[in-house]
Amino acid sequence: MSLLALLDYAAVLVFAITGALVASRAQLDIVGFAFIACLTAVGGGTIRDLLLDRNPIFWIEKPSMLGVAIVAALVVFFTAHFLESRFRTLIWLDSLALAVAVAAGVGVAMSQEQSAAIIIVMGMITGCMGGLMRDVVVGQLPLVLTQGELYATAALSGAAVAVLLAPYTQGTLYPLLACAVTTWVLRAGSLYFGWHLPVYKSTPPKS
Amino acid sequence: MSLLALLDYAAVLVFAITGALVASRAQLDIVGFAFIACLTAVGGGTIRDLLLDRNPIFWIEKPSMLGVAIVAALVVFFTAHFLESRFRTLIWLDSLALAVAVAAGVGVAMSQEQSAAIIIVMGMITGCMGGLMRDVVVGQLPLVLTQGELYATAALSGAAVAVLLAPYTQGTLYPLLACAVTTWVLRAGSLYFGWHLPVYKSTPPKS
Amino acid sequence: MSLLALLDYAAVLVFAITGALVASRAQLDIVGFAFIACLTAVGGGTIRDLLLDRNPIFWIEKPSMLGVAIVAALVVFFTAHFLESRFRTLIWLDSLALAVAVAAGVGVAMSQEQSAAIIIVMGMITGCMGGLMRDVVVGQLPLVLTQGELYATAALSGAAVAVLLAPYTQGTLYPLLACAVTTWVLRAGSLYFGWHLPVYKSTPPKS
Repeated sequence: MSLLALLDYAAVLVFAITGALVASRAQLDIVGFAFIACLTAVGGGTIRDLLLDRNPIFWIEKPSMLGVAIVAALVVFFTAHFLESRFRTLIWLDSLALAVAVAAGVGVAMSQEQSAAIIIVMGMITGCMGGLMRDVVVGQLPLVLTQGELYATAALSGAAVAVLLAPYTQGTLYPLLACAVTTWVLRAGSLYFGWHLPVYKSTPPKS
Repeated sequence: MSLLALLDYAAVLVFAITGALVASRAQLDIVGFAFIACLTAVGGGTIRDLLLDRNPIFWIEKPSMLGVAIVAALVVFFTAHFLESRFRTLIWLDSLALAVAVAAGVGVAMSQEQSAAIIIVMGMITGCMGGLMRDVVVGQLPLVLTQGELYATAALSGAAVAVLLAPYTQGTLYPLLACAVTTWVLRAGSLYFGWHLPVYKSTPPKS
Repeated sequence: MSLLALLDYAAVLVFAITGALVASRAQLDIVGFAFIACLTAVGGGTIRDLLLDRNPIFWIEKPSMLGVAIVAALVVFFTAHFLESRFRTLIWLDSLALAVAVAAGVGVAMSQEQSAAIIIVMGMITGCMGGLMRDVVVGQLPLVLTQGELYATAALSGAAVAVLLAPYTQGTLYPLLACAVTTWVLRAGSLYFGWHLPVYKSTPPKS
């Protein structure tokens, strides 16, 4: 299996779990779990493939991707009640999925020899859009828009690191690894230590 | 007119009515009615066509599809107040639209000789996504995610029946008919008799 | 720069500002500003390009479009607190962006020699979808669905004027100009004078 396919599988697996956890919070049935798991798992990569005119879409080429997402949904359906906090599990797994999916998006765009700007954007889209659709569909504010956390910033930084490293390495293994690690460390640091950028304050400056 | 075009027209017509009914609940003007009617009517089929790289998109090839949706919106605008319960009308028409649209999605994927998994997914996407967009846009929880009802399950079952029947029949008429009937019976049974699958319960097992 | 590229740039710029203003209301950080600014700025045109199978998508061909959106987001991040009412600024800039984007959508569809119906629909999609995604993502009712205002109607009218004028002019400059002016005048008149179409009333007729 190629590195790109491996990244796509890994992102699909972890995002599917987060989707199923959201379904558990909405108390859906098993098909509802699979539905949201699949939407979350392949959402970002699907938008990436549509935008880059990749044909066929990655999960139409490899329907086993959907199988992975469905199995993940089944496992969550029968085991989620063992978790102490489904929400904490959800945001931590989401951080992992984000890191892998950003790398998957960056890798695909690099394999198409897109420009640096488009590589970074494709990393961000692949990383952020699946979770965004998951949250919008169930009527929650998307994690990517949570105030005072690094999310899009983590994705941006990871993708940028990959772009900066790529000229100095052979192949894309190390840049993509660095991308995933950077993204995850920033996101995890934001969740654990509260790292954040200054947020917009609407108060006017003192005069 | 081919069977596939007929199914697309029928799904467009009924989904357009449901979109217009949602617009009536939001008290929009006549162009707002047409806007949501069109979004609902062609949303699922548009995603299907984008994913399958069908070109042109079905309603760009046959703009009369939009004409059907707009006329439906006009009729609803001037007659919806005669309905006793717009919400009950909405969910029952939605069940009908779901059944026809799943068959339309399955039929298109079959005509492209996609694999069984992709045929089923395209049926579900075509059936569920138009209504999902309709509900998300007006800020309601999508019908497909209503707790304790068969919706995605009905679409899945209908599409699966079509896939199972297809090898034993000539042409796709009977499989698609069986698909629509199965989908509708399950959805209607869920609405009328309360049929449902077990939903996820968050309570931990007794220890 | 061609007229179409100019319209796309202008729509991107103004929509990006509206996206950043929405981000300021959600108190996001600077990357969150850029994220929503880009989504709003290129959302409508991206859907247009996907539907019309234009390849590459306009901002993949010209990544500087994203640069424009990001710079706009930065400027808003550092200056929005000087505004007296960010919401009023938002809806007025949105009206401007709508007018320009409808013309951009109409222009692209005309350059592909699409039918009148598809030209009008592409104008409406390009004009309305970016703002719709902006509002849905942050969990607000989309401006296009605000009760008792002209929005989709303004886009429809502007696009229709362009289609009606096109046979009588050489090139598309005047029809597109008339399109933007018509759209803006109707939208602005609705905001300022309260122009509107009759909205659906659910009360039954007296008997």
